[in-house]
Formats: sequence, C-alpha cells, structure tokens
Amino acid sequence: MKQRVEIVKRIMDSNEQLAQQNRQKLDQNQVFAINVMASPGAGKTTFILQTIKGLPENMRLGVIEGDTAPVTIDADKVTAAGMPAVQINTGGDCHLDANMVGLAIDQLDLQDIDLLLIENVGNLVCPAGFALGNHANILISSTPEGDDKPYKYPNIYRGIDVLIINKTDLLPHLDFDMDYFREGVEILNPGLKTFAVSAKTGEGFDQWLAWLEEKVSENQA
Amino acid sequence: MKQRVEIVKRIMDSNEQLAQQNRQKLDQNQVFAINVMASPGAGKTTFILQTIKGLPENMRLGVIEGDTAPVTIDADKVTAAGMPAVQINTGGDCHLDANMVGLAIDQLDLQDIDLLLIENVGNLVCPAGFALGNHANILISSTPEGDDKPYKYPNIYRGIDVLIINKTDLLPHLDFDMDYFREGVEILNPGLKTFAVSAKTGEGFDQWLAWLEEKVSENQA
Repeated sequence: MKQRVEIVKRIMDSNEQLAQQNRQKLDQNQVFAINVMASPGAGKTTFILQTIKGLPENMRLGVIEGDTAPVTIDADKVTAAGMPAVQINTGGDCHLDANMVGLAIDQLDLQDIDLLLIENVGNLVCPAGFALGNHANILISSTPEGDDKPYKYPNIYRGIDVLIINKTDLLPHLDFDMDYFREGVEILNPGLKTFAVSAKTGEGFDQWLAWLEEKVSENQA
Repeated sequence: MKQRVEIVKRIMDSNEQLAQQNRQKLDQNQVFAINVMASPGAGKTTFILQTIKGLPENMRLGVIEGDTAPVTIDADKVTAAGMPAVQINTGGDCHLDANMVGLAIDQLDLQDIDLLLIENVGNLVCPAGFALGNHANILISSTPEGDDKPYKYPNIYRGIDVLIINKTDLLPHLDFDMDYFREGVEILNPGLKTFAVSAKTGEGFDQWLAWLEEKVSENQA
C-alpha cells in the first residue's frame, strides 16, 4: 500500500506542476478561466449556455467540455451556440486533470479569448482533488439532489469560490430546506459567494453575470 | 505510467478476490445482497427506506451505508427504521470496494439476514469498476438529472441488473423524454429490467418489490 500512496503523491505533484503551467498560459493571454463542477445532471451545460447568452456580446469566450465517454451531446450544444469548444474524453476517468486541460488549451487560440469556461466531469467527489490551473472553482448544486449535500460531500464544498444553487424553479415541488442547506455550506466555507438560479428560465442570473463580468474585467486591468 | 497501470491492475485483482470471499460468506448464510448505486441526490436512501417499508415483515434485512465523509445522516435514517445498519466511511474515496464491504459484513449477523441492501457512494463513474460480492447491481436514475444520462455515463448502465427510474412525481415539471432515455439504456443493456417509481410517494414500488421478493425466495430455495 505504501508504494501506491507514493505513486498517487507523485501523480498529484505532477498535476500541480501542470496546473501552474496552464495558469501561466492563461495569464499571459489575460484569459480568466472557471472550472464548473457538479453531480451528473445538475445542469452544468444548461448553466454554461445561459451564462454565454447573458454575457456582453463583445466578451470573447471559449469552452472546454469534459466527458467520460466519447459523446458530443454537450460539446454540440456549445458549438451550436457559436462558441469555440474543445471536448475532452477522459476515457472513463472521473475528473479532468491539468494534463487534459493543458492539451485542450493548446487547441484554443487564447489570444482571442477573455473567458474560458471549463465543464468538468459530472462528479461530486473526484474533481475536488485536481487543480486545473483555472482562476475560480464553481460548484453547481441542484435543488432536487436534496438539502443534505454539503454534509455528505464536504470536500468539494470546501474548495470552491462560488456556489450556484440551480433549479430553483423546482423548489415548489421539493422538500428542500434552504436554511439547512446554507448552514451546511457556511460551516465548510464561511462567507462563500452564492447565487440561487434557474439555468432553465434564466432567473437569478443577473447577479452571477455581474460577478463574472467584474472578474473578467479585473483580470484584464 | 506503466508502473501505475500494474499497481492498479493488482488492486483490481485483489478486489475481485475479496469480492468472491464476500459472496461465499453471503451464500453460506443464504443472504441475497444488492448494491444500490446512483448520482448524489438521486434518492438512494429514500428508495431503500421505501423498499424496507414495503417488504414482508418476516423478511430479515440488513443495510450497509457507504459515505465519503463521517456523517451518519443516511445510517441514522435506516437505524430509525429499525434496521441493523453498518456505516462505511470511505475517507474521501469515490466508491465502495470489496475490502470495505467485507469488513462491514463481518459486523453483521449474517445468519439473521435474508436480504442485505448496500448503499454505495453517490457517484455515476467510480462504483462501476468495483465488484463487492453482491448478487444484483441496482442503478437509480433520477428524472431531474435529465434524459441524456445513459449516453453520458455508459459504463455504469452496462453493468447493472436493474434500473430504477426515480422521482417520477417530478416528471410534469421537467423536460424529460422517456423514449430517448429508454433508447439510450436499451443500446447499452438490452432488455434491462426497469422500474419507474417515486421513492417519495411509493408509486410504482409494487413491481420492484415483487421482483426483489422473488429473488430473495429463490436464493433460499
């Protein structure tokens, strides 16, 4: 077992180095990059599409789509929205890593991008441990998943910069205690920036978009 | 990288052996065991509680609860339902393995159990690769996760014996194309036994319970 631990440590160290290289490339080109994480079906792609729709037309975007299988459902949707998109097929792996993202970044023309949206693999456990080189980690929590998720998947809630509570349009049909949910988040990540939205209807996007636009502007100042 | 691959193979082989040992223990005591897998928040615990409620009173049950963190929310609910329950904290790992389940089995009095329900970690990627020694793999797919899940997480759909489509009570509020979903499943796992239910209301449980009772009876014949 000791040997396994050492090899895992070496993999993590190597990932950290590659993540720093990615960050340098992004910064050299003044690209602000976000890593969007969530459970399967929490609405990552719909959230990204609604975000794209709401951003100013002169903001230049790029998208990296992570999938565990060679399906192009999400990448196709993003391409249909007119965005330059690169798909990463992890070949069954449960998260993106810095190497995969580095290869995808090299396929994009970073000089023509202000904001890079990276959609991670649908998973609440694995992505938490792997830096990619992005500037902000965004977690989408979907209301039908229940109000106990922060208590049950604490690691991913600890490492994020923004929490999106998605599918607020379903709240009237669910037993979702928002106070209990927010208390769990506050214990793990005090003062976390949080936006409650419906990616389907666009409700609640104004404040999220304002936060994101400000970050992109700061990055180019 | 080659060294890593060999170690991963050794871990998998060792897991397979331990899974066979678990199976022997279960079979010696005529315990039928199911492994319940799903995304976070798909309703695994509610499904297990509704199943417990619907089974004949003379069927003797045991439950193993898998979590990535030392929270006892799910285990407490099961214990409150009067069941002998053992909790496994994977310490951040994204799936149960045969070793963990073996340790949990040893804490249960198998001679007094007819049906063992194992709740895996909430994850659509990792659990697919790890045999536990159980007799049937059950996947719960939750309608708010969307109708594209079989296309995006094919591995887990390939290895299951029963598919539960949960949260049918939310269907009126969702854009969920049941035909598209079922077509995706059929490609990956032709003729898969499927039950559409609402674990919250109990709707659709009769057929699932009939299937399960029959399996438990067969196992004791």
